Amino acid sequence: MDEHPSLAVSTVIFALRDSELWTPLVRRIRQPYQDRWALPGGWVAPQEGLETTAARKLLETTQLDPTYLEQLYCFGDIGRSPSGRVVSVVYWALVRPDQAERSSDDDNVRWFRADALPGLAFDHNRIVEYALWRLRNKMAHSSIAHGFLGETFTLAELRGVHEAVRGATLDPANFRRQVLAGGSIVPTGEHVVGASHRPPALYRYTDATLVDQGPLLASALTDRED
Amino acid sequence: MDEHPSLAVSTVIFALRDSELWTPLVRRIRQPYQDRWALPGGWVAPQEGLETTAARKLLETTQLDPTYLEQLYCFGDIGRSPSGRVVSVVYWALVRPDQAERSSDDDNVRWFRADALPGLAFDHNRIVEYALWRLRNKMAHSSIAHGFLGETFTLAELRGVHEAVRGATLDPANFRRQVLAGGSIVPTGEHVVGASHRPPALYRYTDATLVDQGPLLASALTDRED
Repeated sequence: MDEHPSLAVSTVIFALRDSELWTPLVRRIRQPYQDRWALPGGWVAPQEGLETTAARKLLETTQLDPTYLEQLYCFGDIGRSPSGRVVSVVYWALVRPDQAERSSDDDNVRWFRADALPGLAFDHNRIVEYALWRLRNKMAHSSIAHGFLGETFTLAELRGVHEAVRGATLDPANFRRQVLAGGSIVPTGEHVVGASHRPPALYRYTDATLVDQGPLLASALTDRED
Repeated sequence: MDEHPSLAVSTVIFALRDSELWTPLVRRIRQPYQDRWALPGGWVAPQEGLETTAARKLLETTQLDPTYLEQLYCFGDIGRSPSGRVVSVVYWALVRPDQAERSSDDDNVRWFRADALPGLAFDHNRIVEYALWRLRNKMAHSSIAHGFLGETFTLAELRGVHEAVRGATLDPANFRRQVLAGGSIVPTGEHVVGASHRPPALYRYTDATLVDQGPLLASALTDRED
């Protein structure tokens, strides 16, 4: 009765594909929930920081290596694992399409649409739902959309991120007006290079936005020990 | 090497006293850090949810019983305890003055000004600093100030909360204009009962504000198992 609970870490990764949010899952190769899909993760290593363990497990299982993981929540319900008390510290990150390409589907890793998941192991459906809720909340008042984009982007690309996360179609003219009025992005003066007759303008987030907000930027709270 | 880290919970409590933020600390009665002040907390019980353990430990040590605890962060640096790897899930809550009165100073419990703490055990100074940072951030865009106030309050009382948290004096007329324009509070039609010639008006937060935001309200994420 006085044993400590087991401590695990897991990570929710979101990426944008074809204007929809996708997340990679890993097939469980042992009980409990053998063969079910689950979030990438594993046990906390004794001599490793939580975030470091999360990043290592993520890289080992999915080949994904996000530059920043943000802690999402610590899940500790007593009934969440049938094999004993397990407390899971969950991290999350966004990856750009070029980063996501490092992780392709195979027998044990598969990308799913974040809003159309199968029944996952443990309480992982609930965890992904919470991560989606947090993502949508953050979109409203931070530069988090940047995590899906490169350094520069078109207004159509930025609108695509908002449409994918919010699950809604946005009017291009209204979106343009609102986002430019917000002052968080500025034109770079460059345009998309290509064959188009009228190449779209490229924008970037202002430095102030990047410093203040967004889960992809290190805060005073990251616990990287490596 | 394959042992699990020990898992603890701790709680940061903030209350307003004389227009300043105060927090209760508990004297450690054993090593490590014997006799140092520390956040109220203890080991996670095997058959108890994290938040339930946090609330129980808080009640046992300080007699405080906040109606809602919000998870702040999970701290897991490898070097944070000299006696082995300890991962701490930290909760926080605000309590009103009448609730805070249940916890009076004695040999083993003492209230400190949150911005003038002594050197605490473990990384608890850093944890309180982070809780303060989170509180200040939340004040800017939620009804969190409500946690320090009763159901109804005067504009002067609300301004006092903002001044205490932000550590700044605010112009009464500007504050009044801004907070009323924000639409999150409305007059109740009542006034403070007393001997004053012109008793100040009472306000309350709108229902929409309470439903949407603030750490004192249960979200889908609370892990109460009791």
